[in-house]
Amino acid sequence: MTDDLYGIADLDLERTARRGYPEAIYCAGKTPEQVRRIAAAVAERPDVRTLFTRATAEHAAAVLESLPDAHHDPDAGLLAWPPEPPPPTGGLVLVLTAGTSDLPVAREALLTARYLGRQSELITDVGVAGLHRVLAKVERMRQARAIVVAAGMDGALPSVVAGLVSAPVIGLPTSVGYGAAFGGIAPLLTMLNACAPGVSVVNIDNGYGAGHLAAQIAAPVPEQP
Amino acid sequence: MTDDLYGIADLDLERTARRGYPEAIYCAGKTPEQVRRIAAAVAERPDVRTLFTRATAEHAAAVLESLPDAHHDPDAGLLAWPPEPPPPTGGLVLVLTAGTSDLPVAREALLTARYLGRQSELITDVGVAGLHRVLAKVERMRQARAIVVAAGMDGALPSVVAGLVSAPVIGLPTSVGYGAAFGGIAPLLTMLNACAPGVSVVNIDNGYGAGHLAAQIAAPVPEQP
Amino acid sequence: MTDDLYGIADLDLERTARRGYPEAIYCAGKTPEQVRRIAAAVAERPDVRTLFTRATAEHAAAVLESLPDAHHDPDAGLLAWPPEPPPPTGGLVLVLTAGTSDLPVAREALLTARYLGRQSELITDVGVAGLHRVLAKVERMRQARAIVVAAGMDGALPSVVAGLVSAPVIGLPTSVGYGAAFGGIAPLLTMLNACAPGVSVVNIDNGYGAGHLAAQIAAPVPEQP
Amino acid sequence: MTDDLYGIADLDLERTARRGYPEAIYCAGKTPEQVRRIAAAVAERPDVRTLFTRATAEHAAAVLESLPDAHHDPDAGLLAWPPEPPPPTGGLVLVLTAGTSDLPVAREALLTARYLGRQSELITDVGVAGLHRVLAKVERMRQARAIVVAAGMDGALPSVVAGLVSAPVIGLPTSVGYGAAFGGIAPLLTMLNACAPGVSVVNIDNGYGAGHLAAQIAAPVPEQP
Amino acid sequence: MTDDLYGIADLDLERTARRGYPEAIYCAGKTPEQVRRIAAAVAERPDVRTLFTRATAEHAAAVLESLPDAHHDPDAGLLAWPPEPPPPTGGLVLVLTAGTSDLPVAREALLTARYLGRQSELITDVGVAGLHRVLAKVERMRQARAIVVAAGMDGALPSVVAGLVSAPVIGLPTSVGYGAAFGGIAPLLTMLNACAPGVSVVNIDNGYGAGHLAAQIAAPVPEQP
Amino acid sequence: MTDDLYGIADLDLERTARRGYPEAIYCAGKTPEQVRRIAAAVAERPDVRTLFTRATAEHAAAVLESLPDAHHDPDAGLLAWPPEPPPPTGGLVLVLTAGTSDLPVAREALLTARYLGRQSELITDVGVAGLHRVLAKVERMRQARAIVVAAGMDGALPSVVAGLVSAPVIGLPTSVGYGAAFGGIAPLLTMLNACAPGVSVVNIDNGYGAGHLAAQIAAPVPEQP
Amino acid sequence: MTDDLYGIADLDLERTARRGYPEAIYCAGKTPEQVRRIAAAVAERPDVRTLFTRATAEHAAAVLESLPDAHHDPDAGLLAWPPEPPPPTGGLVLVLTAGTSDLPVAREALLTARYLGRQSELITDVGVAGLHRVLAKVERMRQARAIVVAAGMDGALPSVVAGLVSAPVIGLPTSVGYGAAFGGIAPLLTMLNACAPGVSVVNIDNGYGAGHLAAQIAAPVPEQP
Amino acid sequence: MTDDLYGIADLDLERTARRGYPEAIYCAGKTPEQVRRIAAAVAERPDVRTLFTRATAEHAAAVLESLPDAHHDPDAGLLAWPPEPPPPTGGLVLVLTAGTSDLPVAREALLTARYLGRQSELITDVGVAGLHRVLAKVERMRQARAIVVAAGMDGALPSVVAGLVSAPVIGLPTSVGYGAAFGGIAPLLTMLNACAPGVSVVNIDNGYGAGHLAAQIAAPVPEQP
Repeated sequence: MTDDLYGIADLDLERTARRGYPEAIYCAGKTPEQVRRIAAAVAERPDVRTLFTRATAEHAAAVLESLPDAHHDPDAGLLAWPPEPPPPTGGLVLVLTAGTSDLPVAREALLTARYLGRQSELITDVGVAGLHRVLAKVERMRQARAIVVAAGMDGALPSVVAGLVSAPVIGLPTSVGYGAAFGGIAPLLTMLNACAPGVSVVNIDNGYGAGHLAAQIAAPVPEQP
Repeated sequence: MTDDLYGIADLDLERTARRGYPEAIYCAGKTPEQVRRIAAAVAERPDVRTLFTRATAEHAAAVLESLPDAHHDPDAGLLAWPPEPPPPTGGLVLVLTAGTSDLPVAREALLTARYLGRQSELITDVGVAGLHRVLAKVERMRQARAIVVAAGMDGALPSVVAGLVSAPVIGLPTSVGYGAAFGGIAPLLTMLNACAPGVSVVNIDNGYGAGHLAAQIAAPVPEQP
Repeated sequence: MTDDLYGIADLDLERTARRGYPEAIYCAGKTPEQVRRIAAAVAERPDVRTLFTRATAEHAAAVLESLPDAHHDPDAGLLAWPPEPPPPTGGLVLVLTAGTSDLPVAREALLTARYLGRQSELITDVGVAGLHRVLAKVERMRQARAIVVAAGMDGALPSVVAGLVSAPVIGLPTSVGYGAAFGGIAPLLTMLNACAPGVSVVNIDNGYGAGHLAAQIAAPVPEQP
Repeated sequence: MTDDLYGIADLDLERTARRGYPEAIYCAGKTPEQVRRIAAAVAERPDVRTLFTRATAEHAAAVLESLPDAHHDPDAGLLAWPPEPPPPTGGLVLVLTAGTSDLPVAREALLTARYLGRQSELITDVGVAGLHRVLAKVERMRQARAIVVAAGMDGALPSVVAGLVSAPVIGLPTSVGYGAAFGGIAPLLTMLNACAPGVSVVNIDNGYGAGHLAAQIAAPVPEQP
Repeated sequence: MTDDLYGIADLDLERTARRGYPEAIYCAGKTPEQVRRIAAAVAERPDVRTLFTRATAEHAAAVLESLPDAHHDPDAGLLAWPPEPPPPTGGLVLVLTAGTSDLPVAREALLTARYLGRQSELITDVGVAGLHRVLAKVERMRQARAIVVAAGMDGALPSVVAGLVSAPVIGLPTSVGYGAAFGGIAPLLTMLNACAPGVSVVNIDNGYGAGHLAAQIAAPVPEQP
Repeated sequence: MTDDLYGIADLDLERTARRGYPEAIYCAGKTPEQVRRIAAAVAERPDVRTLFTRATAEHAAAVLESLPDAHHDPDAGLLAWPPEPPPPTGGLVLVLTAGTSDLPVAREALLTARYLGRQSELITDVGVAGLHRVLAKVERMRQARAIVVAAGMDGALPSVVAGLVSAPVIGLPTSVGYGAAFGGIAPLLTMLNACAPGVSVVNIDNGYGAGHLAAQIAAPVPEQP
Repeated sequence: MTDDLYGIADLDLERTARRGYPEAIYCAGKTPEQVRRIAAAVAERPDVRTLFTRATAEHAAAVLESLPDAHHDPDAGLLAWPPEPPPPTGGLVLVLTAGTSDLPVAREALLTARYLGRQSELITDVGVAGLHRVLAKVERMRQARAIVVAAGMDGALPSVVAGLVSAPVIGLPTSVGYGAAFGGIAPLLTMLNACAPGVSVVNIDNGYGAGHLAAQIAAPVPEQP
Repeated sequence: MTDDLYGIADLDLERTARRGYPEAIYCAGKTPEQVRRIAAAVAERPDVRTLFTRATAEHAAAVLESLPDAHHDPDAGLLAWPPEPPPPTGGLVLVLTAGTSDLPVAREALLTARYLGRQSELITDVGVAGLHRVLAKVERMRQARAIVVAAGMDGALPSVVAGLVSAPVIGLPTSVGYGAAFGGIAPLLTMLNACAPGVSVVNIDNGYGAGHLAAQIAAPVPEQP
């Protein structure tokens, strides 16, 4: 049976190569030593774009040993190698967030989309408690092909945004908040129950997943057979 | 000890009489027969304003036997006797809601506030997915002393309203919705985590409690000693 | 202020008209009488495409009084008027499901996408317990621009599908199952934690939302400024 | 569209200025460096009253660099600038609490109400397990326009208080307790289910929100149009 | 090994006979036909006192076929045979409850204690929202050896009672309430977190268990070896 | 790719045929009409043993139309065709349960194991509140190769049994109980936390799964390569 | 009103004095400095027996400054002053536990009962996975007037014990365990659903509450009027 | 009664000796000092194979003091003494896992099975997002008598594996993941709802339990009477 299975694996690799989606190494569950070994292996495959996500300072140091020129964004806990993102194709990806506390997760989404080959922009300081700030950005929002909305606490922003645009909105609940925010459960539920159609949701604090999905949605449309 | 305790009880009764807050009979946990007996007793105390809440058709029939002129609002599941609300005093109470499904709960709040002596108005068809409808009502909202916002699903409306007005907002989560709305838990959590200050929350579907509280907040300011 | 707000409302209407997204009437929270009145109003606006979702037999009868030629899919609980879907534009939308029990929700997604103007297909009888059936459909999956995967119980199918394709996968958890499926919470959590990037999630049993989102993702790419 | 939106923003600012509600900087989600930058900006706007909430010792030091005369209450984790609260207007705000452990949250509520311009008092050592202490304070409670009741563990105090007074009671659940207190969920649920009408609830440990709401409720009654 | 095990069984039966604790048949999980067969078997063992709990009208009819003189309390869903309770021994068992809705569960506790041989009394219409009614009963409460407090909604009454007496208080949470009462979870948590020592808790609506335990606590003190 | 995939499918079918595991049709999510069509198809494949699980009376009637000689156990909601179980091979499967209420689920497990080819026995009326009854069965328990323990409420029996035998114990939590049993969550958690090693757990009320697994564990040991 | 209220307060103090129940200071929510001040005040009231519970090493040091001869049990986190327990009255209190990890909570219960004036004993190393150890202690268990059973993980021991004795069993769930033990929720639910009557439950890890309740149950029977 | 009970205890010991199952000391709830004392006692019983599980570095040092030649696997937190596993009997136990983060738990399962006398192998780097890797191992999987599948996040792997093999699959949910993985609840639920029969589940991170159970399932088949 192995031949057939290798065939599937080959197709898989072929897809990665063709679409330019980078490999992602999730550091949170790994020791710095394990990350160091992976980075050393990555250094020998310059043809494969690689992201290291959820990297602490220790993880980052381990990566930079083997890949000293990797791009490192400490706020987002992300390293990218090669350091230059690919030239953007497809549509615009916007990442919206209300405030300072959501920034790490929002930046992880932003950079992931960028290193997957999309033009991506971050708009901060928009929150439903100050609608005028949201409304001031409507025009730019309407130019996006995919919008990531990172929000903690009440998580109400994706509903509001989805009512204003026709692009898909990716709700990115964050663990910001306290008490009955329950580490992100409150905004997660809010987003799952969004009144406006056009909202879907990823896991709490999953900036990488949100950015990856936005990049897929805003990808250049493939040729249909 | 009884004398002292009777003293406290007297104070309590005195308060009810002075403030004009009606008695409320919660029908949901009672048989129609029990409600019938209570209504018969109420008929002999025309000086005490009485509400029957969460009344089914059977409950209502039982009430109307003894109190045939009671006001009956079947949508809200509420009966009031005497049927005329007291002349309004204090400030304006607004009840906002997004749609048809929240109406029963919203009307329960509306009528409760009215029978506790407040001018009260209902504004429907405002939802965060259609911000222009919310914004069109801002001027009226700013004239209220207390605003009840009934919302199911994502429960995002109280956050938005509280960002637009300076009056207290009472979040009234409803069990409208399905799936991850969890019978009202989702909007309850949203409201507890409202980004804008000025929002507090009552129990799911507790229209009576929201209307009562709004009437208290908008009450004529008592003379301070 | 009203002029400005009307302006926003106009933009909103303009968008609906331009994109051809139908109005949707969620019947579950409404009485048949309320639905009847809405259908009568709809009958006078033949330019606006309208869906009635979560319609019981009673709801459907109320709709068909005023709109006798509406398309009615009893399994999906959906009615559409005018009955013919618009000519398809944009990319292919696939709806996958494992078995008989997920069909109502899956069909709701399928028809929503179709009435929003997409070519849409349903593939049933694919489940992770029979991988060969999943793998047999890989080629067709890779031709889709958006894939809705409806699944109850373990909800594992979206993870598997997302590992095989590069299109976005919309996880649609269903309340099928018993015990520790908790009315759809189990598959909802599974999908939120999907190992493969490219999966986002909508509310439990929200076939309308999944189909709407898929139609947005697979929409013809708008002209960028 | 920007002109209209700026109009809304202006109204918003006008409201803040007119009502004297301070700005609040939630420090918990921010680095000391971010707080330092905000404090420096605040120092240039002496006309805007500002609160820093949930401030650790590091946050406080960062604030005091730019605003050395700010009032700092380490127990409440709160700093206020300018240090003097405004002269009190409106009605009395009472903050009740059972014991030592609820004090930080209770003080945050107390000071917030004070810096929003209300006369505010703290009454401690009242708990339902010692009813005589509660009853000994009834007279003072009846002079308040708004009462914040901070309670952890069984959270039973707001029910008891609401049965004794006619002013609105704001339930402020605290995360004090262990085991099945579930970090404040137990008192939160107790308060949401209060038997006595007149109780609403804010988020767990949300002293700022409770104090802000109490100040709104007890505000001088605005002129009605 | 069987001899030893039979020995344990014998001890067990001996204990039941000596202490006079009745057998209890929990009807809720059984068909009327199964209950009928059990009642027929019971009819042949007049020496063993038997309770049938959670009996619907159908269950009751099935019991009364074989045991026509059994005592039947439809509100409590309880039948007892032989119909006369044993002469009371030990101390007084009090059952307190706030209102009409808790009565079925409270009566189940009351009757269980009585048929296990205790003097038992029911006090209704005591709730924390009307403290004077609670305080009026303090004297009688202090004469009890065990107090069952049935309460739904906020479940605050056991805390208050335990602060007033030195007898053990058995918290009996009921599923009365709605929304965030969560079918009895709210009062269950309240009681588990009671501020006053001396409160323990049984399962939601478990009137039988509460009455049984109260009877054990108030039992005549056995001779110590 | 299809050739390879067909290969996997073939292996799968081959396995079913060789091991004699029946097909199972889960009726709960299907209409009687759908079950009727499946039964008609089954009637043409007498070589494949088939079970219909979770069958209501309507489902059963639909099955018996096409398969009039199918074995039907109404308590277990199960039909089997051909009606005779295969001659038993492998080891003994025991199914233990405490009482009447757990019987439907226990019988589903019992019959599933039997129709998968195992000798299977049911032992009822063993519960931890009557240890002597458990201990009286220890000898028979020690002869089993796999033991299914169905239990609701406190779910304590699997822990006790696993401490007495060396065969694997399959915990089968049932939804029997009320209140804080939470529809089977309580016994599910109890079993997951069993003090004794050797216990694993299946879904609440999943008698089919427990019986299937027991049959696999007690299967004749295959020849190892 | 104050006179009456003082009356209630007096009764309360009278009760404490008469029954010899010690004051308890819950240290967990207090700073060492706060505990130090309380201990200094306690030192001036040698007539009132006092317990300090949940005391860390820092708390203990603070207590011992003012009360150098206090009895200190570091495992239980408890200090008692005066150091000698009162001469035992009433019946025997037993505290059972399965293993090493439950010991701190079990000792807190044991010592609390002892300092409230009961003879109290600890039996360890009894768990349902080794029934013979449980059974070996049955004779001693049957001599107790109240039995505290501390258990984590599956929490099955109280059910088993209650089936063997006629004294009340106080279930004391502990947070020992991991994963699906959920910090004590699993044993808490198990105990609430105990099959055997005679079990009630206190909060997770609430050794003080369990010991206090046991002392109340086993108290000398008061003279009845 | 003691004689009989000693009999049961003897049987128990006899069983342990005969089957060769080691004693296991769960270190997590113990102090290093307690572990040290246990290790000293173990050193005097070389005939009883002993495992120390969940051992930190401090625990390990304490064990190695008395048992310097014990086998220590720091990743798995496990020590075994005597250090050599027994010669393998029975069938093959496989442990599958997706990635680096699940390794500690997987190794605990692997080593437990090995020290209970089974041939055991670990297969890593198989995940549902890369089906080809799973399929490449099917042949080896089909040679196992029991398969442990450790998985965090979506926990989908056991469903997929159980569809490919006929051996029992033990789902071992791990606390790997974040956000809505809820410390292992998400994979736990997924596994409980596995579509494929043949999956049962142990507690989150319970590698010891999974390995023990696998060893029981794959044990040499005992002689049947």
